[in-house]
Amino acid sequence: MPSPSCAPADLSPLYLLLLGCGRVGMELLDLLAARRDWLAAELRLQPLISGIATRSYGYLLHPRGLEPGGFASAEELLDELKQTGARAADVEEFILQGRAAGASALIELTTLNPHNGEPALTHISTALQAGLHVVTANKGPLAYAQPELQALARQRQVQLRFEATVIDGLPLINLAQFTLPGVGLHAFRAVLNATSSIVLSGIEQGLQMTEAIEQARRLGIAEADPWYDLDGWDAVMKTTILANNLLDGRLTPVMVEREGIGEIPPAEIRAAAAAGTPIRLLSQAYRQGELVVAQVRPSKLADNDILRYAQGATSVISLQTEAMGTLSLVEHAHEPAVLQTAYGIFSDLVTILLQRRASTPHVAQ
Amino acid sequence: MPSPSCAPADLSPLYLLLLGCGRVGMELLDLLAARRDWLAAELRLQPLISGIATRSYGYLLHPRGLEPGGFASAEELLDELKQTGARAADVEEFILQGRAAGASALIELTTLNPHNGEPALTHISTALQAGLHVVTANKGPLAYAQPELQALARQRQVQLRFEATVIDGLPLINLAQFTLPGVGLHAFRAVLNATSSIVLSGIEQGLQMTEAIEQARRLGIAEADPWYDLDGWDAVMKTTILANNLLDGRLTPVMVEREGIGEIPPAEIRAAAAAGTPIRLLSQAYRQGELVVAQVRPSKLADNDILRYAQGATSVISLQTEAMGTLSLVEHAHEPAVLQTAYGIFSDLVTILLQRRASTPHVAQ
Repeated sequence: MPSPSCAPADLSPLYLLLLGCGRVGMELLDLLAARRDWLAAELRLQPLISGIATRSYGYLLHPRGLEPGGFASAEELLDELKQTGARAADVEEFILQGRAAGASALIELTTLNPHNGEPALTHISTALQAGLHVVTANKGPLAYAQPELQALARQRQVQLRFEATVIDGLPLINLAQFTLPGVGLHAFRAVLNATSSIVLSGIEQGLQMTEAIEQARRLGIAEADPWYDLDGWDAVMKTTILANNLLDGRLTPVMVEREGIGEIPPAEIRAAAAAGTPIRLLSQAYRQGELVVAQVRPSKLADNDILRYAQGATSVISLQTEAMGTLSLVEHAHEPAVLQTAYGIFSDLVTILLQRRASTPHVAQ
Repeated sequence: MPSPSCAPADLSPLYLLLLGCGRVGMELLDLLAARRDWLAAELRLQPLISGIATRSYGYLLHPRGLEPGGFASAEELLDELKQTGARAADVEEFILQGRAAGASALIELTTLNPHNGEPALTHISTALQAGLHVVTANKGPLAYAQPELQALARQRQVQLRFEATVIDGLPLINLAQFTLPGVGLHAFRAVLNATSSIVLSGIEQGLQMTEAIEQARRLGIAEADPWYDLDGWDAVMKTTILANNLLDGRLTPVMVEREGIGEIPPAEIRAAAAAGTPIRLLSQAYRQGELVVAQVRPSKLADNDILRYAQGATSVISLQTEAMGTLSLVEHAHEPAVLQTAYGIFSDLVTILLQRRASTPHVAQ
């Protein structure tokens, strides 16, 4: 079914480019369709997909844009784009032609490279340079190069938002920016890596490490190579981003002390659980004078510790503040949290659109 | 020590009126002093107190304003105001003269009247009518007359904010408004009344009701008359405000089904706790078609229920959403949470100041 190719008279078109369109991207297209009426009523906007780039199909552009709400599903929209779209030669052409055709934001959803954030870092940089807002769920570019990317965004008068990089769409970056001004945030503790929690729980219940990993894979949580999670790298990337944004740190991932769960003898994991102090992969960061110190390491959690709610895919974070004492936020288990991640992208997009109207300045927590 | 009577050249003065100045008001004055540098750096503002009204001292005005940061303590500022301030005849004169002298916001902190929100409702209305922003921690006016007060605020192009009415300064109203656009919030469950939690815990531990109440009083939580809390009225007021703001309800307190904890036999409270399902005063609300249904009643909490973290003065709320599943927020125990309440006022004030620059529109959750 072809979609309407332009917005109704009273709605402004919002042209979007998607770079990467796996499970999160498809869910985002469905969410944009489901929020069609909401976007029209609240923002007088109609989202239109100007282009989608994927590893399998290449760089597809649609000059008039396809409306997610005009299709029965994301798959149908993608089929239409494959049949009627134009093809760019590479990512740069995709971004620049998309921009020239009116796109105002790039949704960056490519695969994480935990070593240096590339090539996503270059893609984001290209998009910002071209005057596109960027929303990303990709931890690499943020963890390695946020200051440079933010400087570029400011210079080009666009925004770079990334709520979905840590605990999906749970407001953390946005919570701190918009709801906790001057609260004096000085530390956090969190359980941020679901694969590690699920593997530890599995071992506590008597599974071998390999069986526990298999279980996490079946839930759609663990990657084909689970060691990025189990060695603590995923938690390090998230901890870096949180430390830099909640505590005004200037960290890169190598500055975060890292210890994964892979080396802990199963007997020790079971003994800790039996003693009522189960081991979880704990992320911590705190201000020490002018510096921010951050660590990821397996830790025993006491009985009354709110972080013990991090069972399975549930994530928990406690913020320590001067004016509000300790606050905790919990995203309850979803396996996998694809819709939650897509919502994080959606909420960032709405925040940009609201700020385009208003331009609220950033305020320290 | 006299305070500087006008703002340094590069800072704009922010004149404030305080109506009511008990423990929260005094803490707010200290917080404004502690955040002097932050307000200057982030907002280029210097807060100045144009007037303070209290039951004991009457309606004191200071035409040039007193700077909280210029005094060693809130007590000293109040002493200075008593010695050098002018006196208004009544609350209306206090508000109008304060406004004429340049005040831009009224901080309303008078005692709650759970029956109809008066006289605070009239005071807030007078202040909005006079063109003042209003920040309040007073549940009555919001629970009984939010639509009318908001309409007046819109008409006068000022803001009415009230984060501190529910769980002190924990972002709930602001969380929903600024960080969860279009999330599809359709229900919440919460434990909102600390006195009830403390009394129930005390009875579980073997105390009599009267002893448990005495304990809550010693912690500074229970009022002289604890029955407003124990009969569920405090929770009803908070539930009304949350239902109206998170779920777009149109409730007044009498529309919330109410059952307090006063009638539960102590043996039943102890038996439930012994069975691993302790009783707490549960607030719930959910959308049912076009309506919002809300209840406050004692309920048994299961073992894995996050609301069980509501021990003592700890408050917990779980939000049920379409796009993010269940999210929970916890404000960990502070007895009493005077600084946390003052921070709620402070954060609302900052939000108003940022919006005065920007004017972000309200967006549905």
